[in-house]
Amino acid sequence: MSNKPSIPQGTRDFGPEEVRKRQYIFNTIRSVFELYGFQPLETPAMENMETLMGKYGEEGDKLIFKILNNGLNDPKNQDKSRSGFEKVMEGKNSKDLTERALKYDLTIPFARYVAMNHGQLTFPFKRYQIQPVWRADRPQRGRYREFYQCDADVVGSKSLLNEVELVNIYNEVFTQLGLTGYELRINSRKILAALAEFCGGADKMIDITTAIDKLDKIGLDKVKEELAQRGLNEEQINTIEKYLLIDGSNEEKLNQIELLLGHLEIGKQGIEELEIVNRESGPGLAGSNLIIDFTLARGLNYYTGIIFEAKAPATVKMGSIGGGGRYDDLTGLFGVPNIPGVGISFGVDRIYDVLKDLDLFPEGVYTGTQVLFFNMGVAESSKAFSTMQLLRKQGVRCELYHEQAKMDKQFKYAEKKNIGFIVIIGSTEVQNNTGVVKNLKTGTQQTVPLADLSNKLFI
Amino acid sequence: MSNKPSIPQGTRDFGPEEVRKRQYIFNTIRSVFELYGFQPLETPAMENMETLMGKYGEEGDKLIFKILNNGLNDPKNQDKSRSGFEKVMEGKNSKDLTERALKYDLTIPFARYVAMNHGQLTFPFKRYQIQPVWRADRPQRGRYREFYQCDADVVGSKSLLNEVELVNIYNEVFTQLGLTGYELRINSRKILAALAEFCGGADKMIDITTAIDKLDKIGLDKVKEELAQRGLNEEQINTIEKYLLIDGSNEEKLNQIELLLGHLEIGKQGIEELEIVNRESGPGLAGSNLIIDFTLARGLNYYTGIIFEAKAPATVKMGSIGGGGRYDDLTGLFGVPNIPGVGISFGVDRIYDVLKDLDLFPEGVYTGTQVLFFNMGVAESSKAFSTMQLLRKQGVRCELYHEQAKMDKQFKYAEKKNIGFIVIIGSTEVQNNTGVVKNLKTGTQQTVPLADLSNKLFI
Repeated sequence: MSNKPSIPQGTRDFGPEEVRKRQYIFNTIRSVFELYGFQPLETPAMENMETLMGKYGEEGDKLIFKILNNGLNDPKNQDKSRSGFEKVMEGKNSKDLTERALKYDLTIPFARYVAMNHGQLTFPFKRYQIQPVWRADRPQRGRYREFYQCDADVVGSKSLLNEVELVNIYNEVFTQLGLTGYELRINSRKILAALAEFCGGADKMIDITTAIDKLDKIGLDKVKEELAQRGLNEEQINTIEKYLLIDGSNEEKLNQIELLLGHLEIGKQGIEELEIVNRESGPGLAGSNLIIDFTLARGLNYYTGIIFEAKAPATVKMGSIGGGGRYDDLTGLFGVPNIPGVGISFGVDRIYDVLKDLDLFPEGVYTGTQVLFFNMGVAESSKAFSTMQLLRKQGVRCELYHEQAKMDKQFKYAEKKNIGFIVIIGSTEVQNNTGVVKNLKTGTQQTVPLADLSNKLFI
Repeated sequence: MSNKPSIPQGTRDFGPEEVRKRQYIFNTIRSVFELYGFQPLETPAMENMETLMGKYGEEGDKLIFKILNNGLNDPKNQDKSRSGFEKVMEGKNSKDLTERALKYDLTIPFARYVAMNHGQLTFPFKRYQIQPVWRADRPQRGRYREFYQCDADVVGSKSLLNEVELVNIYNEVFTQLGLTGYELRINSRKILAALAEFCGGADKMIDITTAIDKLDKIGLDKVKEELAQRGLNEEQINTIEKYLLIDGSNEEKLNQIELLLGHLEIGKQGIEELEIVNRESGPGLAGSNLIIDFTLARGLNYYTGIIFEAKAPATVKMGSIGGGGRYDDLTGLFGVPNIPGVGISFGVDRIYDVLKDLDLFPEGVYTGTQVLFFNMGVAESSKAFSTMQLLRKQGVRCELYHEQAKMDKQFKYAEKKNIGFIVIIGSTEVQNNTGVVKNLKTGTQQTVPLADLSNKLFI
């Protein structure tokens, strides 16, 4: 091959340091999920086409990576005169070409799993899932074609306790990661439904939420313009403006929304739910990290109750680092109705960037080999090898330099790999059953009987 | 959707218990890799087509899952009269259809990574990789279309120390997993090359190794038949038979092979290398777990030195649970020659089956929620929630039942989820600031002041 090797656009290799830093984030999220009683699930990378298609809207369908049927390789497609490939190309519908696709998110495969296994599962079923997904999106800064999602969902329960737990999961994860200045914004789709009802009917819901969703990007004036274009009249737009301008503490906001939409049944419900989540989420959260935000709409139309959006601390320009909400009927898509649920997601790639920007990865996250044994010859390295094996039994991560080489070269290897300690066993040391232990950070060194080498020396 | 949902043939969902058991295997292997100074690498699921094609032989090429270009969805392919799909179907070569594919193993993507980054890497570069791969193989018992590989490779070193380390990695992993009766068979491709030379020339190498590779399956007589069909004469076949019948302890085998092939330079090298690995691998291994086996050939032609095959304990019929070997020039395929290396792989799916068959998963592997707090009403559950949050701070995995329900129902939930302890805080307990703690395994219960609840109670 003459071309320089490369990887597909929008995909990434993760070298040792990046893998370890990402694992630190995954492990933090995983351990908190487990602390809250969520159980791990893994689904295949590929799903049947009909499982995915039509679930993400027209735009989403286009962004699903489809897998070519390997009928191309099937003997029955291979006659002498024409290639199997040409023959398949004659096919008249896409099913001849592709029946499988890469998963686009973790939610639909989860719904498919619950629908397939609901007879065996214990409800409420609390699962978490940390896996890659694929989208044929145009790659750009912070947007990849292959990226991880970290989801936690509870299905089979209408209790608001779940929302309260999920708020606390966000808080625990972000606190453990050092992102104490995060903001978790919450709203209720029921309040948005009430607003739509107040502005002329449920059919306005999509128009209103789509416009409100853009508030951050385009500002209030443009949102009002868009509402007008979408056929809302001046009075309705004034109401929506009043709604969007609600401000103050969580309690003040709840009081104001009560005046505006509390007379509508669906509004009353939404307000009550927000009140409960705001009150029950535990001390120190409400009003500081947990912020009621009526401008939060979330585009996805399957949300029906409380919705969440997590934002990075304002000191770093990153925006959303997580989100979620309650849905009434996810598995209905797969023929199993009436399983309500609520879920959240962490945006790991963005969290990685935020931790990097704020220098929040802990010192010890990138720890590879702790000790390098120098290779000083055949007899010496044999002694070093058996000594090293004893240290490994104590859990010390060690290496023996692979060949006899100049000290300088071996030092450089230790340095480049960021190894903290070296042990030199030369011919004198073999005779004395000792080793020279050098701490490469402090520069101090000591001669130690080999029998005294232990994990305590290398911290 | 009216069809029952399903997943693609040859793929699997892993529920909570399976994920945890698999993680136990992955974590064991990962920690041993780290103990030996290997560093993690992750490459994308998809690679460019030209990275993969032609690397696995003609059969392999057919088994690569190709990803459909999303040109199908590209606006420029979408005019009114014809669908983008039809238009693409007119394309004359496969590049119009697919430019990306799912990775088929971890070795080629690793070689691609080293070739792309060799300027920045520190050699010898020791990496491990634990990721899924995909093959469009006919699914059957124990063979999946999506499965994990666990590889460790060292590149940039010719030292046999690496082989010795890899032998020890196999030993440490299998010992930690309780597979003390495993067998690690080793041979050298140099010895096979010497045999080929002795039987008429290097061009016989592929014929001989292909036939020998089938010995386990078809037996000696059929191997001899195949050798005859492949054009080897009686004398040559007799030599090969003599070779295959070499038996005894490792030392006895080395003595016999010395007599047969020691006069050839390449044979001498191979024998010496086997002797070194056999001798240096440490006490207790050679002859018991580490077995020299001249009938081991390994089909892959890129191996050039020591080759490995790990077998499950003979008590369980499973065969190979790992393998590997030395190669001279892996990255040459990608334009960067002269980087020799050696690597091994663990067959995780088979190891899982072996541990299951032999009942070797440790008791504690499947531990989800430790404590379930019963939900006894609004005020009671509020108390339970704040108590639970304090326990979680101590690392205890807890849940509060999601709604007020009959005791019976809550007991059943704990039972089905295999939760070991329940805590009941009813109205009396709220008044007294106590909780009733019940151990569901022993049946014992006690009333404990809430302030005394701690992680020590729930072991």
